[in-house]
Amino acid sequence: MIIVVKRDSKKEQIENLIEWVKDLGLDVHVSVGQNSTVLGLIGDTSKVDVDLVSTLDIVEKVQRVQEPYKNVNRKFHPDDTVIEVAGNKIGGGYFQVIAGPCSVESEKQIIAVAESVKKSGATFLRGGAFKPRTSPYAFQGLGADGIKYLLKAKEETGLPIVTELMSERDIDLFADVDVIQIGARNMQNFNLLKEVGKLNNPILLKRGLANTLQELLMSAEYIMSEGNDRIILCERGIRTFETATRNTLDIACIPVLHGLTHLPVIVDPSHSTGFSRLVPSMSAASVSAGADGLIIEVHNDPIHALCDGAQSLSCEQFEELFAKIKMLVPIADKKFR
Amino acid sequence: MIIVVKRDSKKEQIENLIEWVKDLGLDVHVSVGQNSTVLGLIGDTSKVDVDLVSTLDIVEKVQRVQEPYKNVNRKFHPDDTVIEVAGNKIGGGYFQVIAGPCSVESEKQIIAVAESVKKSGATFLRGGAFKPRTSPYAFQGLGADGIKYLLKAKEETGLPIVTELMSERDIDLFADVDVIQIGARNMQNFNLLKEVGKLNNPILLKRGLANTLQELLMSAEYIMSEGNDRIILCERGIRTFETATRNTLDIACIPVLHGLTHLPVIVDPSHSTGFSRLVPSMSAASVSAGADGLIIEVHNDPIHALCDGAQSLSCEQFEELFAKIKMLVPIADKKFR
Amino acid sequence: MIIVVKRDSKKEQIENLIEWVKDLGLDVHVSVGQNSTVLGLIGDTSKVDVDLVSTLDIVEKVQRVQEPYKNVNRKFHPDDTVIEVAGNKIGGGYFQVIAGPCSVESEKQIIAVAESVKKSGATFLRGGAFKPRTSPYAFQGLGADGIKYLLKAKEETGLPIVTELMSERDIDLFADVDVIQIGARNMQNFNLLKEVGKLNNPILLKRGLANTLQELLMSAEYIMSEGNDRIILCERGIRTFETATRNTLDIACIPVLHGLTHLPVIVDPSHSTGFSRLVPSMSAASVSAGADGLIIEVHNDPIHALCDGAQSLSCEQFEELFAKIKMLVPIADKKFR
Amino acid sequence: MIIVVKRDSKKEQIENLIEWVKDLGLDVHVSVGQNSTVLGLIGDTSKVDVDLVSTLDIVEKVQRVQEPYKNVNRKFHPDDTVIEVAGNKIGGGYFQVIAGPCSVESEKQIIAVAESVKKSGATFLRGGAFKPRTSPYAFQGLGADGIKYLLKAKEETGLPIVTELMSERDIDLFADVDVIQIGARNMQNFNLLKEVGKLNNPILLKRGLANTLQELLMSAEYIMSEGNDRIILCERGIRTFETATRNTLDIACIPVLHGLTHLPVIVDPSHSTGFSRLVPSMSAASVSAGADGLIIEVHNDPIHALCDGAQSLSCEQFEELFAKIKMLVPIADKKFR
Repeated sequence: MIIVVKRDSKKEQIENLIEWVKDLGLDVHVSVGQNSTVLGLIGDTSKVDVDLVSTLDIVEKVQRVQEPYKNVNRKFHPDDTVIEVAGNKIGGGYFQVIAGPCSVESEKQIIAVAESVKKSGATFLRGGAFKPRTSPYAFQGLGADGIKYLLKAKEETGLPIVTELMSERDIDLFADVDVIQIGARNMQNFNLLKEVGKLNNPILLKRGLANTLQELLMSAEYIMSEGNDRIILCERGIRTFETATRNTLDIACIPVLHGLTHLPVIVDPSHSTGFSRLVPSMSAASVSAGADGLIIEVHNDPIHALCDGAQSLSCEQFEELFAKIKMLVPIADKKFR
Repeated sequence: MIIVVKRDSKKEQIENLIEWVKDLGLDVHVSVGQNSTVLGLIGDTSKVDVDLVSTLDIVEKVQRVQEPYKNVNRKFHPDDTVIEVAGNKIGGGYFQVIAGPCSVESEKQIIAVAESVKKSGATFLRGGAFKPRTSPYAFQGLGADGIKYLLKAKEETGLPIVTELMSERDIDLFADVDVIQIGARNMQNFNLLKEVGKLNNPILLKRGLANTLQELLMSAEYIMSEGNDRIILCERGIRTFETATRNTLDIACIPVLHGLTHLPVIVDPSHSTGFSRLVPSMSAASVSAGADGLIIEVHNDPIHALCDGAQSLSCEQFEELFAKIKMLVPIADKKFR
Repeated sequence: MIIVVKRDSKKEQIENLIEWVKDLGLDVHVSVGQNSTVLGLIGDTSKVDVDLVSTLDIVEKVQRVQEPYKNVNRKFHPDDTVIEVAGNKIGGGYFQVIAGPCSVESEKQIIAVAESVKKSGATFLRGGAFKPRTSPYAFQGLGADGIKYLLKAKEETGLPIVTELMSERDIDLFADVDVIQIGARNMQNFNLLKEVGKLNNPILLKRGLANTLQELLMSAEYIMSEGNDRIILCERGIRTFETATRNTLDIACIPVLHGLTHLPVIVDPSHSTGFSRLVPSMSAASVSAGADGLIIEVHNDPIHALCDGAQSLSCEQFEELFAKIKMLVPIADKKFR
Repeated sequence: MIIVVKRDSKKEQIENLIEWVKDLGLDVHVSVGQNSTVLGLIGDTSKVDVDLVSTLDIVEKVQRVQEPYKNVNRKFHPDDTVIEVAGNKIGGGYFQVIAGPCSVESEKQIIAVAESVKKSGATFLRGGAFKPRTSPYAFQGLGADGIKYLLKAKEETGLPIVTELMSERDIDLFADVDVIQIGARNMQNFNLLKEVGKLNNPILLKRGLANTLQELLMSAEYIMSEGNDRIILCERGIRTFETATRNTLDIACIPVLHGLTHLPVIVDPSHSTGFSRLVPSMSAASVSAGADGLIIEVHNDPIHALCDGAQSLSCEQFEELFAKIKMLVPIADKKFR
């Protein structure tokens, strides 16, 4: 960390600041320039409050040099993390497609979709049992029954399942869930992050609508600091001024995250755009940008979907899209399985 | 709700759509124009999925006419809600100032701050016991002990207390808390909203960093739909491209919210700007914009604050600010108590 | 256009409003519902001021049904516009790559880059002669000399040239420029748009940093309404809260624009990200998302580039990237030439 | 400027970098830490390309210490700039209200509004002659005639006039205009900035919709670097995700700008919100936040305004608002004249 001291600061003030920093267990390297004095803080600065220091009268500017995350940092773990679930690998050159309906509606529905997406090539089944809805009057998901039906679909098709956990209280219901999703709205529900950090299940962590990549990595750090190091990051669009799409897919975050962390990065082209007609092109773009996987909404009867139907592909559209993905994956130096 | 049908749609398709709408229990008023047919949906349209309808082949545009919230809607409850806590009223022309440190650090500290802010004129004491921190390595608050110290400070000074609840699991610890705060990061933690909706304590609901006013009102609707109608809304800055301040204080949301809802609206000038030097002017601006109250961070020793010190006023600065607030409140047609 | 009237409006007020609308030369279709009366405005509503109407006491909501643009609207011109420059076609299935340095620095430099990018496969040469710089103290381009050197490079290599016009006063210098670029900061310099609308040169219109797609189309409409219908739209990143990249590449705008307009859409992966290491993946993503071309910064000596070097590829990196683009273009159902 | 070098960099690479910096005429102070080497650049770093340096292989991070603006910087000019026009002072404790219609519509209209706002207390008349409109089909202003009518109104009332210049070509028409406005969309029309920098007329520079405060100051620096130091900065709302208001009024920019620059800062509450009902509260908030003035839209017949009527106050509403402003100005330690 670097602290730039104002040029008109008194010697005594600077010495007080240096002392305060040393009290935090850090070494200080002082460099006197023409217009300002620069303090270089040496040691573990992750606990220094940048905001606090920056308000001191004598401080011109404070700049963190080290990232505030450790476990998820590629610097300290240069090799890609590869997460294997039921023989399917994500990360480190392996690419997977997760597909399924927004909500689980019935045992029959989820089995039908599972069979269809499996046939097209998907290797994971997704489906919401607990649904975060903006309105208290909207359908909130089948809850425990939804998970039961997902497990039934897994039994029928062999596809491992991915579904969202919204509350610490429901955690026991998720014991047999292959990949537990933490949704965008809970990305900074720190208590929930700590709880799933204690589990062995892989975690699919979605980026919040208005969260920076650094905040996403800090949330992954929360999970990892509790012991669970099987985390898949997921870009699902950010909130901007543009309203032509529901959110703005931040496609460049894929290579940026790959530079900062060893964790795999997948993309949700369905929620990010909000329109099924944009899903094929955004899926293709994500593969070509280097994503390690996709999570796509597929429904066997979009018009009657209980929620988010507008962004679901039909089974036929998904099959067609998968054929294109197959061509693009090897060009992006990735492989399935 | 209005559905505009594309001009080249087939008669049969339109009839199918009308039938589908009627199946939802709604009446339909059809209006045939030059370039397009317009369907007016009559009845309770809050359950119609706008996104779904808008993806139908024959649909040009869908527009909701009614707001999706009811209980918090001023249309159906024209009179201001006035929330009274220990004799202090917020809303309906009454103005209150909540003050205190970011975090409770010790019994001694919280009592000292409480005594000081009370002397200056504050009528509520705030202080964090459970702290949402971006980093798992940052100070997370004293937890249950923090609440114990707050209650002790209340006993000493008579000031009712405001503190943040982060997890459903901690709810029992908050029984004696006068006003329970739901933080910005939990504004769409729907399970938590439902739980506090079942309580009798007034709720201070902070707007999320990237949430629209409609979403804020929908979250208040979650609480109210469970029975708790004592909700104070709080603007605390939104995330934008500008980095000169920590967040952008959306000051215009005060009159906008007053138009849409009967609930009181207060402002947090400390978190929104992130700098103590901006707190006085933003407090004054909020009063003049019509806010029903302020929640301000005050600390007796900012440099040693464990978190967020950069945005805390000293007790002396708070006293000076309060003197100015006293002049502005009556000009804004508000009164204390 | 649809106007929803408040339910407690007086009959007389509604009649006044209808009369006012009719005075604008429009027909009105009145539909009386349970809670509100809906007026459907029939005719050319492009001149009705939505904001004005929405402030009238009796108006609940106003909603435009038709897009406010005509010439650029795909509805009225369903076939793709194909722009041909020196035998190179853009749009309608044809894909082109424009490459070159941020700034023209010397005759020698621009010819060297031109020869290199041509060898790699680029079919247009870009280079800035007039540079929009945030700081008055930064290099502002070689001006007229820059254009002279570009034309020299064209003479040597046969590559048509693309360069930015910043001021109406310089327009005569651009007579021989093959494609005139209007930069992001001038997207709403309406006088400049009108002037280039009177020319025959194709226009490369860059999206402003914080402009919606509708505003981009309205700016294209400005140009087209003056007679020039050879417009190439260019996405170059929008301003959001995320600071990990210079701007956020709005990749989904490619299919969205293709739905709304018949004009070709290209992407600038260099300016949007601000880092050369992100250019290859964002170029690949743009091709797979359906872009009609790319405009890429390439420099023969990045470290000494006078501006924006951070986002320039070396000639070798560009050659490698072009090899990948060649594989992706046919998969996206596009072809060169 | 500080350059943090990666810890695994070779000695030779670091020496090359130091040499390169010295070639730019700067001194370098080297500080070797545990994990990284820090270079402190001493001298005028305003011409060093931060983006370029940050892409070098061996560079971890680059941080500017000095602001890139000089003339507008309060550090080098601690005293407030006071701009006097026809005896009315803005800045340095003086507060003014500019009022008038969005567009000049006729001689009669502008004189009527001028007389009314003068009676209420306004000391400047505003009115658009050249109007930047998103649509080529919208009313574009009366042009030269508009300025003629404004000058006539000035003759009648003595009020100095403020009106917008959109094009370098029209500059001669503005010789007698008391304050020349540069609109939000032209804030980075650098050629126009340079031209008005050569004039003697005071310039009202509006912040762009998506421009940072630093960019606003750099645009002011463009004007000042050409010799014109009479600049009034104007906040008029920024573009965010929130759609309840047209733009988000960034009220905190007032004290932030006052800290960074000596130039006066005024607020436009009309354009920023887009609704006349929000103008009174936002005007009051701006005064209390420390603004040096307001520019308010006032119309004698809002329903027939040719543009932006939705955000105009009637003359009666303006009179009422002015009475409140009079109470707030002294509390904000400001005075009229």
